[in-house]
Amino acid sequence: MGTYSRRNFIEQMGWGLGAAVALPPLAAMAPARAPLGAPRQLNIALCGLGRYANVLKTGLAASQHCRLAGIVTGTPAKAAEWKRAYNIPDKNSYTYQTFDQISANPAIDLVYITLPNGLHKEYVLRAAKAGKHVIVEKPMAFTEKDCREMIEACQKAGVQLAVGYRLHYDPHHIELKRLGQGKVFGQVRLIEASLGYRLEGISPDDWHLKKALAGGGPLMNLGVYCVQAGRYTLGEEPSAVTAQFGPVTLPQLFKEVEENITWQLYFPSGAVCTSSSTSNCNIDRFFATADEGFFELEPALSYGPFKGRTSQAAFNFPVVNQQAAQLDDIAAHILAKTPLPAHISGEEGRKDMRVIEAIYQAARTGQKVTLA
Amino acid sequence: MGTYSRRNFIEQMGWGLGAAVALPPLAAMAPARAPLGAPRQLNIALCGLGRYANVLKTGLAASQHCRLAGIVTGTPAKAAEWKRAYNIPDKNSYTYQTFDQISANPAIDLVYITLPNGLHKEYVLRAAKAGKHVIVEKPMAFTEKDCREMIEACQKAGVQLAVGYRLHYDPHHIELKRLGQGKVFGQVRLIEASLGYRLEGISPDDWHLKKALAGGGPLMNLGVYCVQAGRYTLGEEPSAVTAQFGPVTLPQLFKEVEENITWQLYFPSGAVCTSSSTSNCNIDRFFATADEGFFELEPALSYGPFKGRTSQAAFNFPVVNQQAAQLDDIAAHILAKTPLPAHISGEEGRKDMRVIEAIYQAARTGQKVTLA
Repeated sequence: MGTYSRRNFIEQMGWGLGAAVALPPLAAMAPARAPLGAPRQLNIALCGLGRYANVLKTGLAASQHCRLAGIVTGTPAKAAEWKRAYNIPDKNSYTYQTFDQISANPAIDLVYITLPNGLHKEYVLRAAKAGKHVIVEKPMAFTEKDCREMIEACQKAGVQLAVGYRLHYDPHHIELKRLGQGKVFGQVRLIEASLGYRLEGISPDDWHLKKALAGGGPLMNLGVYCVQAGRYTLGEEPSAVTAQFGPVTLPQLFKEVEENITWQLYFPSGAVCTSSSTSNCNIDRFFATADEGFFELEPALSYGPFKGRTSQAAFNFPVVNQQAAQLDDIAAHILAKTPLPAHISGEEGRKDMRVIEAIYQAARTGQKVTLA
Repeated sequence: MGTYSRRNFIEQMGWGLGAAVALPPLAAMAPARAPLGAPRQLNIALCGLGRYANVLKTGLAASQHCRLAGIVTGTPAKAAEWKRAYNIPDKNSYTYQTFDQISANPAIDLVYITLPNGLHKEYVLRAAKAGKHVIVEKPMAFTEKDCREMIEACQKAGVQLAVGYRLHYDPHHIELKRLGQGKVFGQVRLIEASLGYRLEGISPDDWHLKKALAGGGPLMNLGVYCVQAGRYTLGEEPSAVTAQFGPVTLPQLFKEVEENITWQLYFPSGAVCTSSSTSNCNIDRFFATADEGFFELEPALSYGPFKGRTSQAAFNFPVVNQQAAQLDDIAAHILAKTPLPAHISGEEGRKDMRVIEAIYQAARTGQKVTLA
């Protein structure tokens, strides 16, 4: 509570006053930082050079412990461009056909899968089989069952599996957890968390509109952030779900997946989290009200920069490169051979997918779905 | 669009530059102001001297065209107190037993009913029968059918019937209508509007907790503002409704009426309005996102003062006494013998009640309710 200053933030994060002048390395923002041994870097191959790979390359450039060492792409022109730009040798460049040969390449430690959702499972299984650690983007898969299979395959192969939950590395979201789970304003009762982008100008061929590749509409791609925010603010798993499909206002685009969806998560504490995810308008906000105050972010769930406040004071946190911080934390754990923090693990992805499956079931049937 | 200044506001409201130094009379804020004849005042009797009567007395004191002339109360101590404080003669003071005698009292023009919801219908019918104009607080009644009966009784008696929709007189809400209905940022796609107060400390005997007197929980008393805001921002009537009862976290209080409820209104334009009304936490916010921008208020639906902005600029409207402005507009119309504006009419109350009935039906059945 009280006011927010950069010094406060630094102190909250557990850094001493001596560090208050220069910000500590981004990796230090990891809530459960692993000790680093030798200053080795983790060599990462990006699998799928689409929109998010272009966001990640900035994060990779800013990271301390990761290095863009390889690529996997089906498009020769992209391969040429990335190899040139990042000085990637031919031997570290794969197609989807040659991908499995990565098992024989000691110059790649980890495969970061940024393929369309529908390919996540296959490539996690193939990366694990190749003996590589894996980061897979959210949503982890289409079903909880598939998530279990992916987790087991990685365990069996002795590789670590992470899900690309970048928001756990943003100080605004670390603060949501502290305020909510720490009951700083008492028990949180109601959360409103919504994320949407108007996709009017998107190509009708975009994979986000195809059921087989996306698995669903905005719930899969954006709603997962709302589900996450509810879960980590409360530190609980929902016990029941209701949901509603919204109208189709862009019928030329939304033939296979939902355009709009709203849902409500009911938590054992009695807290409710209501959300909208939409592809027909822009919305990006988070609000939590507790017995003795509220806290909110707007923008809240996008790439930021975020703006937030509590009922007492405005947030004043530094802007961080979420992707760099996420990558550095994962690298630190993998290099130190320590298990990844729970918040970025495959188990975390599985828990979200369990909720997302229940949301779809509730929207389809109109029935409240109970989660055992 | 653009920036908001007090001068802008005054110009938007249609007042000349000459008025820009001193604010014009509050009654002038009525979107459809009736011409005033002689400077007569409307003599008002407050019926029910509870919490809201205590809010209204400030509005009455600030109004230009209304005068607190009488009271109706079942509590002798309250009668004595109000008579002394407002110089009300004995002949203008009624009990619920003597109320009908008001028909013979030319010193009372209008009865303002601030009784518990469950008594609204009876007292509107009795006031109309007594030949008095009526203002009834929201929610107007328990059912659309009762609203129709009340409207017809007033028409038959030749008296005007208003519902206490104070927010239509607040410049922030007049602006919501202009931005939404005027499509200033294009078509509105999604509205989030929620209002709640934590009632933990309330007496278990409070009428708000009794089904017979309240008709329902927070949907009746607070949700009506969210329904209103959705309807007047869009200028449309919803064509379908889904709704969900939330958990009971204060079982010692919520034995008869809902403690929490969420709902979604679907409008013919394709816009969706999602809302929560709750009695277990504080929430007071409005957000609308349209094709080319957003606009929001927080606080939004309470007595204010409100704070708002669009995606382009912060609102900068004067704080007004909503009740005084509402009373003056109603008085202006009644004194001029012109029909009340639609936004404050019994018809407006009926339209809200139609939606509220559908919300309860949807929450009870779990089914989407279509409004013909």
